Amino acid sequence: MIKNIVFIGAGNLATHLALALKWADYNILQVYSRTQLSADDLANKVDADACSSYAEVRRDADLYLFALSDKALLPALEALQLKDKLLVHTAGSLPMSVFEAFASNYGVFYPLQTFSKAREVDFSKIPLCIEASQADLESELMLIGNKISNSVQLLSSPQRKQLHLAAVFTCNFTNHMYHIGQRLLQEEGMTFDLLKPLILETAQKVQVLPAKEAQTGPAVRFDEDVIKAHEESLKMHPDFQKLYRFVSESIYHLHLSEDD
Amino acid sequence: MIKNIVFIGAGNLATHLALALKWADYNILQVYSRTQLSADDLANKVDADACSSYAEVRRDADLYLFALSDKALLPALEALQLKDKLLVHTAGSLPMSVFEAFASNYGVFYPLQTFSKAREVDFSKIPLCIEASQADLESELMLIGNKISNSVQLLSSPQRKQLHLAAVFTCNFTNHMYHIGQRLLQEEGMTFDLLKPLILETAQKVQVLPAKEAQTGPAVRFDEDVIKAHEESLKMHPDFQKLYRFVSESIYHLHLSEDD
Repeated sequence: MIKNIVFIGAGNLATHLALALKWADYNILQVYSRTQLSADDLANKVDADACSSYAEVRRDADLYLFALSDKALLPALEALQLKDKLLVHTAGSLPMSVFEAFASNYGVFYPLQTFSKAREVDFSKIPLCIEASQADLESELMLIGNKISNSVQLLSSPQRKQLHLAAVFTCNFTNHMYHIGQRLLQEEGMTFDLLKPLILETAQKVQVLPAKEAQTGPAVRFDEDVIKAHEESLKMHPDFQKLYRFVSESIYHLHLSEDD
Repeated sequence: MIKNIVFIGAGNLATHLALALKWADYNILQVYSRTQLSADDLANKVDADACSSYAEVRRDADLYLFALSDKALLPALEALQLKDKLLVHTAGSLPMSVFEAFASNYGVFYPLQTFSKAREVDFSKIPLCIEASQADLESELMLIGNKISNSVQLLSSPQRKQLHLAAVFTCNFTNHMYHIGQRLLQEEGMTFDLLKPLILETAQKVQVLPAKEAQTGPAVRFDEDVIKAHEESLKMHPDFQKLYRFVSESIYHLHLSEDD
């Protein structure tokens, strides 16, 4: 039974996940971060020890949970040498096999959400994507997952990679569209509050309708008059203007390609 | 006092707006639609007469509310000749001045939302953007607006045009990102349900944080390794691949341009 966990990493994802595990009665033994201040900060929140050098990382945990940037993972594994331990990472875009040379039992514990320090999140609603090199670890990770989330999924590395890519479109790219909208309103002296109900309704619609059915606006009917007028309005923003044309065409083509 | 209203148009927007006005005790006299079936359908919902030819449109209403496609408005105005009547349209992208040659007192009543037949909407949360050629009509439209919405705004035609453009980014383009995400998951045998909590949280975050602060993911830190891996994953979708690169660069540049 996994009980004692060491966190390698203390960023947004690590913070939210460590808190959720703590509330589910897991014991966070220690938090490592490159920056002592970050390690202290998270360690205080979950009654753990803190450290900022790999040499200080305790060797007596049941599970080592890596919540690092993709680039930082390999150097950490090389430095730590935790060959006989259970190791999992939390990255959408890295295959489970990154652990191959460093351990014999390992896995992935990927919470699909956008984490910001300033936002509380309800972990119970976050899909947790799990993969493990051995069946017993898979069961243990499923058990942990089900304690903090109502949506635990077994996904292969290729599936998780595709899911992460889809998340970039639906979260990061979507947020960029919000950002452009905010900027356009500012320039005409309007508040972003005007767009907030529309943004929420757009997100709520696809909770119940397929995105294709939910689509409205000039692009899907390729209304050239409106599209040209919008391009004209964007002449001071060549970047937004190109993006406008490009996305409008993409909407039109995706709909055509999916018609019967 | 405006009491009796004729609707010219019976689409999604007309339907939702007519229902909201009916609930607020306005009298919908008549609904015109090119298609008798559509006119009947909405007329039945709001206890109105229905017609499908301009010659049958009643001349005794206090207000004529045009909820037509942008292209259909001018031909309708030419056919109807309602010179002494109060006329308003509901279009984001058309200036108020489209009425100039057809009436002396006119305005705009633009509800900013994405309407689908299959979705109920809570009109009280929909921003209503109002403009009028004369002060007395402006007051009347504000009065009507405040009976059905908690967010009534006076906006000029250039502001409304810019708002409509911003809405295309934050609603239509955002929905396209959802659509692409849905398609990518399907291809690896995953359900769109996995992305739904992320989509909602992304929309909820910008209700309280500026979009710039809410941004996460590989593009904003321009993580070339992840970006290249994602482009490689999209090699079977040249359109999505180009869009991925283009939006990623746009995110990075917009953030750079807004840094002090």
